[in-house]
Amino acid sequence: MDQQNHLSARLVVDDDFEVGAVQDRLFGSFVEHLGRCVYTGIYEPGHPTADESGFRQDVIDLVRELGVTTVRYPGGNFVSGYRWEDGIGPKDERPHRLDLAWHSTETNEFGLHEMAAWLAATGSNELMEAVNLGTRGLEEALDLLEYANVPEGTELSEQRRANGAEKPFGIRMWCLGNEMDGPWQLGHKSAEDYGKLAASVAAGMRQIDPTVELVVCGSSSHDMPTFGAWEQTVLEKTYENVDFISCHAYYQPQRNDDGTRDMASFLASGVDMDGFIKDVAAIIDATKARLKSEHDVFISFDEWNVWYQGEEPSKVPEGIDNWPVAPHLLEDVYSAADAVVFGDLLITLLKNADRVHAACFAQLVNVIAPIMTEPGGPAWRQTTFYPFSATARLAKGGTALEPKLASDPVCTSRYGEVDGINAVAIRCADGTLAVFATNRSLKDSCEFEIKVPGTVCAVEANTLHDDDLFAANTLQDQERVVPHTNDTATLDAASGTIRITLPPVSWTALHVR
Amino acid sequence: MDQQNHLSARLVVDDDFEVGAVQDRLFGSFVEHLGRCVYTGIYEPGHPTADESGFRQDVIDLVRELGVTTVRYPGGNFVSGYRWEDGIGPKDERPHRLDLAWHSTETNEFGLHEMAAWLAATGSNELMEAVNLGTRGLEEALDLLEYANVPEGTELSEQRRANGAEKPFGIRMWCLGNEMDGPWQLGHKSAEDYGKLAASVAAGMRQIDPTVELVVCGSSSHDMPTFGAWEQTVLEKTYENVDFISCHAYYQPQRNDDGTRDMASFLASGVDMDGFIKDVAAIIDATKARLKSEHDVFISFDEWNVWYQGEEPSKVPEGIDNWPVAPHLLEDVYSAADAVVFGDLLITLLKNADRVHAACFAQLVNVIAPIMTEPGGPAWRQTTFYPFSATARLAKGGTALEPKLASDPVCTSRYGEVDGINAVAIRCADGTLAVFATNRSLKDSCEFEIKVPGTVCAVEANTLHDDDLFAANTLQDQERVVPHTNDTATLDAASGTIRITLPPVSWTALHVR
Amino acid sequence: MDQQNHLSARLVVDDDFEVGAVQDRLFGSFVEHLGRCVYTGIYEPGHPTADESGFRQDVIDLVRELGVTTVRYPGGNFVSGYRWEDGIGPKDERPHRLDLAWHSTETNEFGLHEMAAWLAATGSNELMEAVNLGTRGLEEALDLLEYANVPEGTELSEQRRANGAEKPFGIRMWCLGNEMDGPWQLGHKSAEDYGKLAASVAAGMRQIDPTVELVVCGSSSHDMPTFGAWEQTVLEKTYENVDFISCHAYYQPQRNDDGTRDMASFLASGVDMDGFIKDVAAIIDATKARLKSEHDVFISFDEWNVWYQGEEPSKVPEGIDNWPVAPHLLEDVYSAADAVVFGDLLITLLKNADRVHAACFAQLVNVIAPIMTEPGGPAWRQTTFYPFSATARLAKGGTALEPKLASDPVCTSRYGEVDGINAVAIRCADGTLAVFATNRSLKDSCEFEIKVPGTVCAVEANTLHDDDLFAANTLQDQERVVPHTNDTATLDAASGTIRITLPPVSWTALHVR
Repeated sequence: MDQQNHLSARLVVDDDFEVGAVQDRLFGSFVEHLGRCVYTGIYEPGHPTADESGFRQDVIDLVRELGVTTVRYPGGNFVSGYRWEDGIGPKDERPHRLDLAWHSTETNEFGLHEMAAWLAATGSNELMEAVNLGTRGLEEALDLLEYANVPEGTELSEQRRANGAEKPFGIRMWCLGNEMDGPWQLGHKSAEDYGKLAASVAAGMRQIDPTVELVVCGSSSHDMPTFGAWEQTVLEKTYENVDFISCHAYYQPQRNDDGTRDMASFLASGVDMDGFIKDVAAIIDATKARLKSEHDVFISFDEWNVWYQGEEPSKVPEGIDNWPVAPHLLEDVYSAADAVVFGDLLITLLKNADRVHAACFAQLVNVIAPIMTEPGGPAWRQTTFYPFSATARLAKGGTALEPKLASDPVCTSRYGEVDGINAVAIRCADGTLAVFATNRSLKDSCEFEIKVPGTVCAVEANTLHDDDLFAANTLQDQERVVPHTNDTATLDAASGTIRITLPPVSWTALHVR
Repeated sequence: MDQQNHLSARLVVDDDFEVGAVQDRLFGSFVEHLGRCVYTGIYEPGHPTADESGFRQDVIDLVRELGVTTVRYPGGNFVSGYRWEDGIGPKDERPHRLDLAWHSTETNEFGLHEMAAWLAATGSNELMEAVNLGTRGLEEALDLLEYANVPEGTELSEQRRANGAEKPFGIRMWCLGNEMDGPWQLGHKSAEDYGKLAASVAAGMRQIDPTVELVVCGSSSHDMPTFGAWEQTVLEKTYENVDFISCHAYYQPQRNDDGTRDMASFLASGVDMDGFIKDVAAIIDATKARLKSEHDVFISFDEWNVWYQGEEPSKVPEGIDNWPVAPHLLEDVYSAADAVVFGDLLITLLKNADRVHAACFAQLVNVIAPIMTEPGGPAWRQTTFYPFSATARLAKGGTALEPKLASDPVCTSRYGEVDGINAVAIRCADGTLAVFATNRSLKDSCEFEIKVPGTVCAVEANTLHDDDLFAANTLQDQERVVPHTNDTATLDAASGTIRITLPPVSWTALHVR
Repeated sequence: MDQQNHLSARLVVDDDFEVGAVQDRLFGSFVEHLGRCVYTGIYEPGHPTADESGFRQDVIDLVRELGVTTVRYPGGNFVSGYRWEDGIGPKDERPHRLDLAWHSTETNEFGLHEMAAWLAATGSNELMEAVNLGTRGLEEALDLLEYANVPEGTELSEQRRANGAEKPFGIRMWCLGNEMDGPWQLGHKSAEDYGKLAASVAAGMRQIDPTVELVVCGSSSHDMPTFGAWEQTVLEKTYENVDFISCHAYYQPQRNDDGTRDMASFLASGVDMDGFIKDVAAIIDATKARLKSEHDVFISFDEWNVWYQGEEPSKVPEGIDNWPVAPHLLEDVYSAADAVVFGDLLITLLKNADRVHAACFAQLVNVIAPIMTEPGGPAWRQTTFYPFSATARLAKGGTALEPKLASDPVCTSRYGEVDGINAVAIRCADGTLAVFATNRSLKDSCEFEIKVPGTVCAVEANTLHDDDLFAANTLQDQERVVPHTNDTATLDAASGTIRITLPPVSWTALHVR
């Protein structure tokens, strides 16, 4: 429909208009006992790079490079049937269990202690632990918190010490179950019943450790039939005792009627994520008003990504005799286009930094992940690795500025006309400026102008784009898609104006000094 | 009131009008840990006929003769306080437990493994296992299913193998608790709360084994104050995840105002059972329509019988110090009249073979049972044994035909005028024809005419009747009441007409070749 | 405001007007695992007076002198996180646990067996045991009851015997959780949810022992926002299966706007308690009528006292590393005025002897208690000891008579005009007469006239009063405040008239022979 050959867009950067501080936790990830995320992902004894704990150093190096902060663990759907005590104590005494969520066998070789040690090995990332509110409830959640955080002198804290962790793990962030609104969830509950249980568990956990930060389950997607009503009921019952409500969202190209993929809408996925955040924020505010509360609840967007959920088997085939260990599951191979969407979602999170105080892309390794591994072989970066690592490096510790953005529109069948360019400006921790931008157009490049305040002397720009939208990094061709310097970037220092051409379906980071 | 001396009735058999296939599971029974059903019933180490497992061979022989298929186990009310793991492992380490349902002590000598082995010894009957949703919930139900059905490789499946069952039990049918609508039930719940729990357990169990067939609790009797509303609420919450909803019904003669027994109404008990089935079927259909479901739910009539519930102590006298092992409980002695009612109920189940896909008379041995035993002594057949064994032998594998029946009425105070004759025709697996009929009249014999299609050459008829309605089989007189050949049966092969005289209060099986 | 110098009041004693028998259980107390109530309170191995079980004999002597009957145990808020099995078996194998209610470490050195033995040592007081309905539910409550009350032959009863208690404890009274209406309670529930759980637990416990007397939780105070609605909902669900509904009330002087204490209202606290009882009685009666029940439910006022709850730290400071064993908590030092209020509350309970069939002042030792101890040192009587011991001694086994009382009023800001004198007459077990009276006026003495029936020949009067309202008994001055003979008491035997002067802020016991 759209015949133009060039989009144009303009962003005005003004430090007087802040959205808010960018929380470190916005750069969280997620390690679930699912497929090969743990086993042959972060943990593979015998791998050439593995240390004595079985941690793959090649993966740790990539995780450090990626810039991940908080890591959510151990699920996900997995947690709703998990018995945390299965994963502690001598490894050879740990039980093998059915994992109903992913139709696998969980060997429990890797558990809480291993996760804590692995996080330390990556450079002290923060652990975000989930309790099982599917098959379990209050008592087991309290036991786990005691085990993890009480220094010493009680049955469970002494058990932890006997298991080798003399110091408590000091876990601050806790998820009160996972996606309890989802009918697929083991122990799925109504909003009313989940709200009551979560309120009770939250209150109890605070009696042990009032400093914990608690995440109550919001909706598993913006499209859930219970969306909105779920948030309202759950917040009504838990508001004072929780610090976050979660959002989960996965995006993929939908199929058009003719079987082709609706890439235009897919590239605008950030529009949906933005609306999701705004909707939940409104429900938070309304609840706060109704309860006359002084307390603030933020959003933990603790599962987000591109996921070709409808396009590949997401589970081991059913069958009472088919419970593999660490099967290949959800090993999506990401394209250049996927990376652009991924970067666009990150921009969207940053633009909502006042409401989104934590976020975890899902997941870290192998399972819809930016890092892939070959058992016994190498580890490499998927396309989505690059937008994340660049954004984390520049934005961490910074302040998101209000995006004064004017952009030509592009048309999508799902969202109608949307901004062709999505962008956010970050005042970095070191005083420099970063701008992240995507061009969502499928065929048109964009002349993008950025008006920056004060004195600037240099601009660097890196753009991820491939003429083949579906180009990807694979074991065989691990660096097929990487960002390149965008030489079109020019700075008119006098007027504080930057101009850059953004190719279609591209993601760009600009660093302005 | 009724002065006539002869009833007449006519049944037209037409293979073009089928009700449906007779499911093998219609001939199920029930073994509960109650009184002497298990201990000194099917299991009595040291009995002269017992094998090395303690299984009485005399009982096994009678069970085979009876023709029982599926056996429901281990309860009944018993299951609502049962911990399945008490009944596994070395026998001398199994705990003795209070059985609150029957105020007894459960020694746990007999458990899941023994039941499976016993069923194999009887000729591979099917086990229908119940999970405890009284004192327990989701996690324990999943554990039991894993223990029973997962081949190997997990904690619980390996525990089963270590306990001697290398192959999984492969249990298909599972009851989601027992009679949870009954205030007497340990852990009794509202329809709303039970429905939510059952839905959650059903979904979880299917995540382990999607091939299980699940029975959700319906009403404990047609007379429950919550009948109907219970089914509606429970099905609304569980419909897609269950395969059966249960019905339970027990019948006995009520007392008239003058203290005599209302035998006329008692003989027409099938009328109530038929109405119960029709009512539940209507609620199933309405739910299916409302939910726009493609899925079918059938009726599991998994407790039915004559039971003199009001007339004898059903429980050990209360008392904190009185918890006997395997006490004499519910050892009803059945009369000729009881056998006729029992046969009539079986006919009613067959007539509803399209909706009732499973049924279990309760119970198999000693406890309101067709088979009685003396500890250390003989086993014998109660009157009810005969209608069951004959019906099972002829009808199993057959097809129930629509009963085109015209019968003179008899009067009952409870049900008004009802058909004096109840009858059903079955096209047998071998192509022959079986007709089962009861004469419900207390004093009038009946001229019964059956019009059969095609070419037939012979008819055999066996009738159970005793001039003394209350005649029974006892230890002393084990064959007082048995069926006899009914010599009044005549066949007019030319017209395909059978004529037979059915004495009052009688049950008859005709086999037509 | 009030300028008069003398109040006057008149009590007519008439045996034809009975309120009802004074239940022994009205003189109950409460031992919670809280602060030093158990540890260094009733139990202190190594104390000079301790026996081989570690029971302090000095405390036992005072408990006997106090005249306590039923003792509620082990909580209180403590019980909502308690695992009863932690407190049985070899002491050196018992786990140390977090006590979330009081932010302490529970060593479990003292448990059910110790409590039973201690009660025996005090002269066979009755144990009133609470089950945990906070973190636990039906199964654990049944297990505890089996352990405690089943004579022998089952897993848990044999475990009790192996732990040294060959005979069952035979516990009659059981609390179905504690203060489940309080948001501070671990596992706090809605009235609806608690009512359902309590009904289920009550029904189950009666299946083990139909003679148990069950106390369902009422409101934690008359001022709870859910008061009334809570009782109505909970009784609706549990009425037929419970014997008592609980009331809890603590009183303290509120602060006036100028910071002074509102002693006038405080002295009239009995007015609130009386209203509380009347309100709950009305809800009981309404429920009984609505359910057309034949069953009676009484009030168990199982926590009551003066408690300076707002004035001192009630909990160990929060902190994940601060979980002391038996810290100093709630060690209120009671004044002469407190003792008068305490005595007034006792009078109020006696006046409602028809509805209040059990009551427990909270607590017995050290924790808002009449008995204080020094670790390694002496034990002594607080001011509140005296009204209790005298009332228990005279009223136990007696009959409360309807209080035909006419009193000049005193003014209070909280309750308006109230009777200056509160009094009750008890026909004692030995046929003598006891009258208990408080003068609630802050400055006026009262001429109190009592008209007694029949022939009387002597009166003794003891009054607790101190010119310093705030005088108290302490370690240093253990008998600063004690009752003294009131010499103003005169008897006119001819007319059956007793006259006595009651000083302001005083409590008096008269014994008439």
